[in-house]
Amino acid sequence: METEKGTTADGRKKAASPRRTGSLSLVGIGISDEKGISLSGLEELKACEKIFAESYTNLLPEGTLQRLEKLIGKPIVLLSREQVEGERVLLESAVSSSVALVVPGDPMIATTHVSLVIAAKKKGISVRILHASSILSAAIGESGLQAYRFGKMVTLAYWRENYKPMSAYDVIAENLSRGLHTLLLLDIDEKLGPMKPSDAAAILLEMEKVGKKKILLPETKVVLLAALTRGPAHGQSGKRNFASLSELCASGAHPPAVVLIPSKLHFLEEEFLAL
Amino acid sequence: METEKGTTADGRKKAASPRRTGSLSLVGIGISDEKGISLSGLEELKACEKIFAESYTNLLPEGTLQRLEKLIGKPIVLLSREQVEGERVLLESAVSSSVALVVPGDPMIATTHVSLVIAAKKKGISVRILHASSILSAAIGESGLQAYRFGKMVTLAYWRENYKPMSAYDVIAENLSRGLHTLLLLDIDEKLGPMKPSDAAAILLEMEKVGKKKILLPETKVVLLAALTRGPAHGQSGKRNFASLSELCASGAHPPAVVLIPSKLHFLEEEFLAL
Repeated sequence: METEKGTTADGRKKAASPRRTGSLSLVGIGISDEKGISLSGLEELKACEKIFAESYTNLLPEGTLQRLEKLIGKPIVLLSREQVEGERVLLESAVSSSVALVVPGDPMIATTHVSLVIAAKKKGISVRILHASSILSAAIGESGLQAYRFGKMVTLAYWRENYKPMSAYDVIAENLSRGLHTLLLLDIDEKLGPMKPSDAAAILLEMEKVGKKKILLPETKVVLLAALTRGPAHGQSGKRNFASLSELCASGAHPPAVVLIPSKLHFLEEEFLAL
Repeated sequence: METEKGTTADGRKKAASPRRTGSLSLVGIGISDEKGISLSGLEELKACEKIFAESYTNLLPEGTLQRLEKLIGKPIVLLSREQVEGERVLLESAVSSSVALVVPGDPMIATTHVSLVIAAKKKGISVRILHASSILSAAIGESGLQAYRFGKMVTLAYWRENYKPMSAYDVIAENLSRGLHTLLLLDIDEKLGPMKPSDAAAILLEMEKVGKKKILLPETKVVLLAALTRGPAHGQSGKRNFASLSELCASGAHPPAVVLIPSKLHFLEEEFLAL
């Protein structure tokens, strides 16, 4: 069953027809809850026949999918990590119907989305990406630090008894040596959950004991953006904290969070962080 | 005139009351047209008393503000660059009423937004930021390149008779030496407009003649994402081009665009770009 896509009077493409077949749409809902979805994202969900969601590349605040179901008037099937990475559930549906996968944040930042798109295209399934806000730019914006002054980003992994990776420390050190800030994403573990800001600070201080470059001392001030899924997108302030690592160790701030390790601050950055 | 902000039955904050006073909301509409705005962004515009917009930190596609006016049922005043940077128009309104500034992309990536927020807060005006999709993450997503493999981003400035800055070349070279990709934003000039992809390629090749590091040769393949305001957010594919700089010189692709200079590609990145 095929149908021509229509255009409106001014020549713009109309929203996807619900009758088209064989498609996969990755629809981002941004860094907060269902209200972070764009109008085109919402149209896409209304137009697609089968709606799935995943909530492991990032967390979705409680109740998000239930409220989104009400907005679009149809059920959403939450997939496990295995089901998303296995690809079968999604691709078998997408061969013959219009399928959407709702994802937290902006799609395609997670490697698993890239793999999924490759597999879909190889099967001749057309793919659409519907963008939304991402922690990559929102964190920069909320911190007031300049986008041009960021180096490579990195995830701070949990330290375990027998596995204490130093990669985040090395990236921070290299960025600092170039005068660049670092965006530090915090690990999400299936069992331990998302890393707390206090745990992150403790790991960073432990890393310093191994790395010994004197870059992450107890008095080193960093930017914490916490409780992100509730915060910035709703315009609530007070989630930003410019504090020393030792202060952060004692912080009761909630995940999901990111930590920004600033290089030497410019005047405007300093002024913003002091507000 | 003050009013308590309400909460809904489940304890979440309600949309901002239209009666609150003295506030400034920066509302992003994302990388495409008005349909890139989030549901919370749209609620915010409906709740605010005075709506302004700017279209110089990025371009807004033609008709965007007119269609947005219809969606929110009130007029939007487009400000000039001077008016936004002068801050007076916005701040004088925001002292006594709820003011929103509609911005292209995600707010706060442009330094002018950071300055504005600092000035507003100094006047005791409460500030809200409503996030939306940003070229920073959308470009990474559309390219299939891994977010963790990007170094510092940089803007490619127009070359003029007496001013031929090499900063973009230096950043690309440094990123490549660390095995990192570069996101290259293209200059927007008040008179010349947004830089064409073909002009960007020509400047990059000219830079190589000065820099002589053999990193930007005619056969060097780069990723072009073009016609961005119409493309990815609407799920239209075919705007991505993985081509050599000499091919790009002959390209008729339209701005706004970004160019990504890849470092050595990983297998998955290569597979995605070959699709």
